[in-house]
Amino acid sequence: MRAPSTIAAVQADHYRIELPVPLSDATHGEMTHFDFVTARVRDSDGAEGLGYTYAVGGAGAAIHAHIVHDLAQVLEGADADRIEALWQRMWWQVHFAGRGGAVAFAIAAIDVALWDLKAKRAGLPLWRLLGGNDPAVPAYVGGIDLDVPIEQLLDSTQGHLERGFWAIKMKIGRPVLADDVARVAAMRELLGPERTLMADANMRWRVDEAVRAARALQEHELYWLEEPTLPEDVAGHARIQREGGLPIATGENFHSLAEFQAMIAGGGVSFPEPDLATCGGVTVWMKVAHLAEAHNLPVTSHGVHDLHVHLLAAVPNRSFLEVHGFGLERFMAEPLRIEAGYAHAPERPGHGVALDFAGLEVFRV
Amino acid sequence: MRAPSTIAAVQADHYRIELPVPLSDATHGEMTHFDFVTARVRDSDGAEGLGYTYAVGGAGAAIHAHIVHDLAQVLEGADADRIEALWQRMWWQVHFAGRGGAVAFAIAAIDVALWDLKAKRAGLPLWRLLGGNDPAVPAYVGGIDLDVPIEQLLDSTQGHLERGFWAIKMKIGRPVLADDVARVAAMRELLGPERTLMADANMRWRVDEAVRAARALQEHELYWLEEPTLPEDVAGHARIQREGGLPIATGENFHSLAEFQAMIAGGGVSFPEPDLATCGGVTVWMKVAHLAEAHNLPVTSHGVHDLHVHLLAAVPNRSFLEVHGFGLERFMAEPLRIEAGYAHAPERPGHGVALDFAGLEVFRV
Repeated sequence: MRAPSTIAAVQADHYRIELPVPLSDATHGEMTHFDFVTARVRDSDGAEGLGYTYAVGGAGAAIHAHIVHDLAQVLEGADADRIEALWQRMWWQVHFAGRGGAVAFAIAAIDVALWDLKAKRAGLPLWRLLGGNDPAVPAYVGGIDLDVPIEQLLDSTQGHLERGFWAIKMKIGRPVLADDVARVAAMRELLGPERTLMADANMRWRVDEAVRAARALQEHELYWLEEPTLPEDVAGHARIQREGGLPIATGENFHSLAEFQAMIAGGGVSFPEPDLATCGGVTVWMKVAHLAEAHNLPVTSHGVHDLHVHLLAAVPNRSFLEVHGFGLERFMAEPLRIEAGYAHAPERPGHGVALDFAGLEVFRV
Repeated sequence: MRAPSTIAAVQADHYRIELPVPLSDATHGEMTHFDFVTARVRDSDGAEGLGYTYAVGGAGAAIHAHIVHDLAQVLEGADADRIEALWQRMWWQVHFAGRGGAVAFAIAAIDVALWDLKAKRAGLPLWRLLGGNDPAVPAYVGGIDLDVPIEQLLDSTQGHLERGFWAIKMKIGRPVLADDVARVAAMRELLGPERTLMADANMRWRVDEAVRAARALQEHELYWLEEPTLPEDVAGHARIQREGGLPIATGENFHSLAEFQAMIAGGGVSFPEPDLATCGGVTVWMKVAHLAEAHNLPVTSHGVHDLHVHLLAAVPNRSFLEVHGFGLERFMAEPLRIEAGYAHAPERPGHGVALDFAGLEVFRV
């Protein structure tokens, strides 16, 4: 057995990165920046793991503070291989003011770094370490495009199709339902009957509105309807799915395994959508994937596709990878490549993401 | 109508306060300090509202960062009377990395300050502003005493009885159930059949263990069994209550209205126990109290008794006030007085707490 690896240092950095173009959706309004928090874990042999998380609407300073003031002390001097034990210690260290919120993001950044370190030391890409099911993962793309004119929506979709994508997600949740229906209809016409179309309402609706919208959209064969209402409302999701007649995707706003358990057991979701950067890291994401499998459900992802490609490649019940990274690829040496609508998990050790920290410096908070 | 009051400034301060004596319970291990974060909201007329929150196990820096970096910008220049609108704006500002965790504590501190300001400007004590049901609130006291010898537990209880208390809470969750049973039996013997005894397991047990413990403790007439297992497990709480035969209290680890809704609707709690400092403030606490009332349930409180006395005095379904404040009374001009086991909501405007900020200075982080 190789000698255990002891954690020597944890470094956290906080950046606020300007978006190339401002984005808007039904809930978050206009977004011009996002917070980006990195965690680097170095062991006593000088090996390093890299993790990161992100947030819109602030919270970056709080996430950074959790790592520096609450979590680093749990890690330093500990055995880096024992990620499950460290995860539990981090969770319970901040349990009283935790159980979700910013600390789930902080734990996520560290957990990703620990998995990266472990995979690097094992000489394996993360997807092989975690399960090694299938490195080719179907991917979908979409814009944060609720407020763009329909012509621009179709133009940009045409561009995605020319790049080889055959699965597209669009935003819905406009003030008038007929607008949503017209835009979905136009997208279905452009895509034809074979390609995959998802729609994301970003929690815009009450339950009755969501049922009405789902019924109105049914004829256009949506693959899933995402976040129709508030993430807390398990009974509401179950009702929307049952009465609306469309499969529901949700999970980007869940920050714990227990939230997925409640929604899955409550019959409110067909496509659980954990985001490792917001639900506590690789450790929690994998548990959600297995929980979904046990319930005969697929698992999809949200954001940070350079990391999620490994996790979806690891598990047998993987659905689509969301390709959406806020333009982070400009800071990466080898961003994920998508060919013919498939992402391929890389064979580099760890997750294989190397960030251009010098280039990020201008955005440091 | 008086002129609206505009928020001119929000000041947040972070202290880490040493406990007079270290505490321990079944989950948090030994605690030597707690984080204390204050929020002061000043309006354009120079009036000021004071709010505060606290945490064990860290998170103070993150809570402070949320106020300074994420929430203050939402408040400055806004109409201070419109607390509900401001609460919603704060919640949604940090929703992506929020929905609980540290931001619920940050919002709580601000929300308390806003209610204090509003009550002061109205010339009313908070309990009158909020409902004015009954200023005399039955109170219970207890130690964080899981690990103290039984003689010390009984001695300290004897002291509480001599101070006029007739309701006492003790910690349970020792490694051997027979120890818990013996300690509860000894406490019941000391208290006699008339006085009230609660027991708090601080999430120590699995569900099956909790059922077994509840059954073993039944003959000693516990008024409630608190936090028998993980706060996320609604079905588990319902099973413990049904099969264990003791009423359950829980809520100090819930950080949103939705968590109370799920537990109440799921039949897992008889004494909802919101803590305004950890569940989003007065605004959420009052909604939980009314939700409980609608379900024919009482409401109790956790911690910060100088604030909670107002809320319990406001509502018709109030159960006991927990008297437990980490020794904060040494920084207060007029700490709450308890007479014959009753706390009396003060008639001073606002919540009536004035903190000795000069005295706190030595603990500033």
